[in-house]
Amino acid sequence: MTSYAVKAFGTKASDADLEQLTIQRRNPTPKDVEIEILFCGVCHSDLHTARNDWGGTKYPAVPGHEIVGRVKSVGSAVSKHQVGDLVGVGCIVDSCHTCASCQQDLEQYCLNGFVGTYNGKDAHLGGQTYGGYAETVVVDESYVLRVPKHLDLAAVSPLLCAGITTWSPLRHWNVKEGSKVAVIGLGGLGHMAIKLAKGLGASVTLFSRSENKIQDAKDLGADEVIISTNAEEMKGAAGKFDLIIDTVPYAHDVNPYIATLTINGTLVLVGYLGPLDPMLHTVPMIMGRRSVAGSVIGGIAETQEMLDFCGEHNIVSEIELINMQDINGSYERMLKSDVKYRFVIDMASLKN
Amino acid sequence: MTSYAVKAFGTKASDADLEQLTIQRRNPTPKDVEIEILFCGVCHSDLHTARNDWGGTKYPAVPGHEIVGRVKSVGSAVSKHQVGDLVGVGCIVDSCHTCASCQQDLEQYCLNGFVGTYNGKDAHLGGQTYGGYAETVVVDESYVLRVPKHLDLAAVSPLLCAGITTWSPLRHWNVKEGSKVAVIGLGGLGHMAIKLAKGLGASVTLFSRSENKIQDAKDLGADEVIISTNAEEMKGAAGKFDLIIDTVPYAHDVNPYIATLTINGTLVLVGYLGPLDPMLHTVPMIMGRRSVAGSVIGGIAETQEMLDFCGEHNIVSEIELINMQDINGSYERMLKSDVKYRFVIDMASLKN
Ligand SMILES: [Zn+2]
Ligand SMILES: [Zn+2]
Ligand SMILES: [Zn+2]
Ligand SMILES: [Zn+2]
Repeated sequence: MTSYAVKAFGTKASDADLEQLTIQRRNPTPKDVEIEILFCGVCHSDLHTARNDWGGTKYPAVPGHEIVGRVKSVGSAVSKHQVGDLVGVGCIVDSCHTCASCQQDLEQYCLNGFVGTYNGKDAHLGGQTYGGYAETVVVDESYVLRVPKHLDLAAVSPLLCAGITTWSPLRHWNVKEGSKVAVIGLGGLGHMAIKLAKGLGASVTLFSRSENKIQDAKDLGADEVIISTNAEEMKGAAGKFDLIIDTVPYAHDVNPYIATLTINGTLVLVGYLGPLDPMLHTVPMIMGRRSVAGSVIGGIAETQEMLDFCGEHNIVSEIELINMQDINGSYERMLKSDVKYRFVIDMASLKN
Repeated sequence: MTSYAVKAFGTKASDADLEQLTIQRRNPTPKDVEIEILFCGVCHSDLHTARNDWGGTKYPAVPGHEIVGRVKSVGSAVSKHQVGDLVGVGCIVDSCHTCASCQQDLEQYCLNGFVGTYNGKDAHLGGQTYGGYAETVVVDESYVLRVPKHLDLAAVSPLLCAGITTWSPLRHWNVKEGSKVAVIGLGGLGHMAIKLAKGLGASVTLFSRSENKIQDAKDLGADEVIISTNAEEMKGAAGKFDLIIDTVPYAHDVNPYIATLTINGTLVLVGYLGPLDPMLHTVPMIMGRRSVAGSVIGGIAETQEMLDFCGEHNIVSEIELINMQDINGSYERMLKSDVKYRFVIDMASLKN
């Protein structure tokens, strides 16, 4: 397979800063779309992968899976996209197409493992896949999404990961007009959960430890903010929510939130990978048929549905636009939660 | 309110044996059904309540909420039952009728708290309610179930608690022809879960720690038994079950079972009240949209549905019939899991 060189930003080791690199992209096969990357959102997974926080990172690592760009060329068999189209690529660039999950449009749960946009196994060139911190990306048309033209393109890019990660559980657990939804945590995921749940017609409450978040959450559309450290407020919320989207990325006590679920309610974890510490208590679950579940990103069809919905409802992420060269400082700021609510890289800066 | 004296068996203190007592039953109000008790199943809750294991027991305590009997008299406004009918009473003898749960036939989740058949708050005579270890019971007709005549009545009684406790999650999580169900633990609950899931057309697997249970489970209708301490067998079950009914009554590691759920699968806890120790790990939940839930008994309409289903499918519990006077020894045997699979008291013995 032939390939060509592009400029990218990545890291050669877990303890090294990101720097400019040259990587190879395959020349498009008949089914491929070649995309000039315009914007790329900065996800916490980018940072964790760059630093090998989860193990398994292959170097050089080029992060980025919130990609918005313009179609530069298409393979001879491509039918869904044309040169000049505005398109997006999220966390998935391939999957097996044949397993029970793929056949139900649940590529995120591909039983053979989906191919991640970065640090996945590159079936074409060998080695690992490289993400969106680059001039171009070449992706099978099935994994390329249409982006509504009238939206702010930079602010669309976080929809490809933060957006779909919260959209998928909202849809799976059937949030609609009149649903009562709560969101735990107000970061990249949490702020999208608020906007999308509001868009779906739910009443939305933010749980936050910080009084500082009250006005921010209301500005984003939240109907109410409950300070989770205030026992009185927590007690007042007993039995209230049909669905809680828990975006907190570190170990935390979920028990106080279970008590705020309705009968048959579900708390769905989308941010934290690890043991539930302190231990989950079964009594509030048993005595109210309540569930604790997990959910990861979303399928391709569902991602398109979400982008279309955002187009209709004028929903985008709140972002801070940065240059590619600012990425290391931005990672440091992310670690301090010092961003409202997502960094997005203006990829034009890579040409500098 | 007027009342009359009946013979019963109960205990006056947490550390005392059960012995014969005299208790009062209310004279039936217009809405009440007076039932001559023929059989009463012996549930683990009976023992826990008698011994105040959960706190809150009021003495004297008269256990028993797996009641089968014959209607002895009915109040003037009773329309559902007639003198001579075979009827059952389970764990619930009253609820508020007005809350969101009651209005959805989910009396078991009554937001104002259902009235338990024993150790509940007796709104008529004051003090606590007394259960089925007695000559008669007087219950509002709404909480009295019709029992299929052709079934073995003694073996019907455990359906009123053990049966409905497993039926309710099987139905709520939509088990049907072709579903893949697993059951953890083969006691009173587990053996009913196998029979009912089979009756619904599912393929059924038992998880057990003991090789001794293999033949027993197959005799009850299980298609397969997986020895949970056998790592190879557990690995082979990865991603297999739509629903797991976890009947284990003590703290245990649920993580190995989560891995055996399909994408979108649910493990529902019906037996263990307490913290999930060891801690539940979120990764297998997030990476497969899997849920952990709890469920308690079932509603009145659902209990009737289950009894009717058991009538059609000739499903009853496997029991060991005892005399009332054997109850203390039977409790000791239950603590050693030395019963296949439920003790049922022949209430005629109370006349001795
Ligand atoms: Zn991401
Ligand atoms: Zn697949
Ligand atoms: Zn019981
Ligand atoms: Zn109620």
